[in-house]
Amino acid sequence: MSLLVVGSTAFDSIETPHGSKADCLGGSSTYFALAAALFTEVRLVSVVGADFPAESRALFEKHGVKLDGLEVADGETFRWSGRYSADMNSRETLDVQLNTFGGFKPKIPAAFAETPYVFLANGSPGTQASVLDQMKRPLFTVADTMDLWIENERDELCELLPRVDGLIVNDEEVKMLTGESNLIRAGRRLLEMGPKLAIVKKGEHGAFLFSSYFQQALPAYPTDSVVDPTGAGDSFAGGFMGFLAECDMLSLGNMKRAMAYGTVTASLTVEGFGVDRLAAANRHGLERRYEELIQFVAI
Amino acid sequence: MSLLVVGSTAFDSIETPHGSKADCLGGSSTYFALAAALFTEVRLVSVVGADFPAESRALFEKHGVKLDGLEVADGETFRWSGRYSADMNSRETLDVQLNTFGGFKPKIPAAFAETPYVFLANGSPGTQASVLDQMKRPLFTVADTMDLWIENERDELCELLPRVDGLIVNDEEVKMLTGESNLIRAGRRLLEMGPKLAIVKKGEHGAFLFSSYFQQALPAYPTDSVVDPTGAGDSFAGGFMGFLAECDMLSLGNMKRAMAYGTVTASLTVEGFGVDRLAAANRHGLERRYEELIQFVAI
Repeated sequence: MSLLVVGSTAFDSIETPHGSKADCLGGSSTYFALAAALFTEVRLVSVVGADFPAESRALFEKHGVKLDGLEVADGETFRWSGRYSADMNSRETLDVQLNTFGGFKPKIPAAFAETPYVFLANGSPGTQASVLDQMKRPLFTVADTMDLWIENERDELCELLPRVDGLIVNDEEVKMLTGESNLIRAGRRLLEMGPKLAIVKKGEHGAFLFSSYFQQALPAYPTDSVVDPTGAGDSFAGGFMGFLAECDMLSLGNMKRAMAYGTVTASLTVEGFGVDRLAAANRHGLERRYEELIQFVAI
Repeated sequence: MSLLVVGSTAFDSIETPHGSKADCLGGSSTYFALAAALFTEVRLVSVVGADFPAESRALFEKHGVKLDGLEVADGETFRWSGRYSADMNSRETLDVQLNTFGGFKPKIPAAFAETPYVFLANGSPGTQASVLDQMKRPLFTVADTMDLWIENERDELCELLPRVDGLIVNDEEVKMLTGESNLIRAGRRLLEMGPKLAIVKKGEHGAFLFSSYFQQALPAYPTDSVVDPTGAGDSFAGGFMGFLAECDMLSLGNMKRAMAYGTVTASLTVEGFGVDRLAAANRHGLERRYEELIQFVAI
């Protein structure tokens, strides 16, 4: 089934201990779309500037990503630059130019309004709610968020939570959102705030899935080559949602498998700068990593 | 089969965000012994002072721990006090009095020299080597170490590594020892330095097992009640070695199961101050957690 993503498209300039690369195609919806496109048809709703090049558009199209919802506004595309620490567990933002993304008000094309699977990439809770207002009863909706919205727009975020099926956050964010310092209690508390699923990303330490019925923990895929962590979280979300949209059966077993597909999809992304490695991936290589991950966690 | 442990016995004064407790029975060999005693007969080689009370001796004996190798020296028992940070991921040592442990030269009783399973708890590599010199061809030997020895006695540690079957360290230690910042590469590099197994503990993020044949990752058991992390690593080692000594069959499958038993044993320890919770545990409760852990990581 089709999968809609609403989020940012950007050009990133990235420095890591392995080198640097300027003007990489990036943004939350870009990583998500290219990841999810390994599984299913993806519909992108985002905004770029008049400077957005034909080759970037062509990259999306090559992966079957539908661009009817990609607005081209006057001005320039969102630009971000950042530098990672030596162990790549933290990063410093060097520059942000929101440009056309600063005034982004997502407009869902009529043909996309009935898309059954929806991912609300990181954005203000108000913007995320405006997307839900335009959708016609989606089957399965997951939202991402960040510390900025938890701190500054908590009420709006708390209003959004009962309207989504899942929230995907990192371990610091779920503790901040719930006020619980223990991760297990924080995950359970988040479920009481509305969503049926709480997905907690822990970077190199893997991910947790909380639901009323079960908990699951998965380590990260054991890659020995982390070149650039940018987009790992959105790639995880893309693999998770892409697999669920592809099999179109929301069983508990499929949720667990989706966590594993998210994990291996993210492992590809971090092995290259920007989307280089992810965009070069194919389903065969992904399946091989999935089988390796299963062996890795088997007892 | 029997399992020998050589290490420290101490009295700890511990402060955590959940409270504080003075003069808790502790030390690496204490946690290890009480954990492993859930599985098999444990032989303790350690040193205490004349102040070591009958009730602590009785606690070991109640769990079937053999004390023939527990030397009582003139002076006082090793004392340590420390305070944990709010998230309990780091701790500050407030006071250390080595006392009788300062001059500890392990003497293996003749009746213990043929023990097939041996754990060298944290100690100087020279002291650990002196234990191996006294053992008659043990079947399976695992050593623990710490940053102090990696920094100050690297040569002695590197000489020890080919003499043990496994080394158990935390993630920072394996990176320090191998000079590799990526955990997967660090684990592989450690195997090249001698041991056939490298076990890397990551605290609340679980543990990795590296061998030439396979890698395994396990999350921590999802406890929502961490009261005092002291002794978690030694309890993990005790569960790991205790299970292997109990089943006395060194298959790859049993190594993976031993990792899971180590994980659930450690999860008990952290739920109480000192050894309180561990000493009150029974095999039935441990097996229930083992089954829960299997479900937790199943895909």
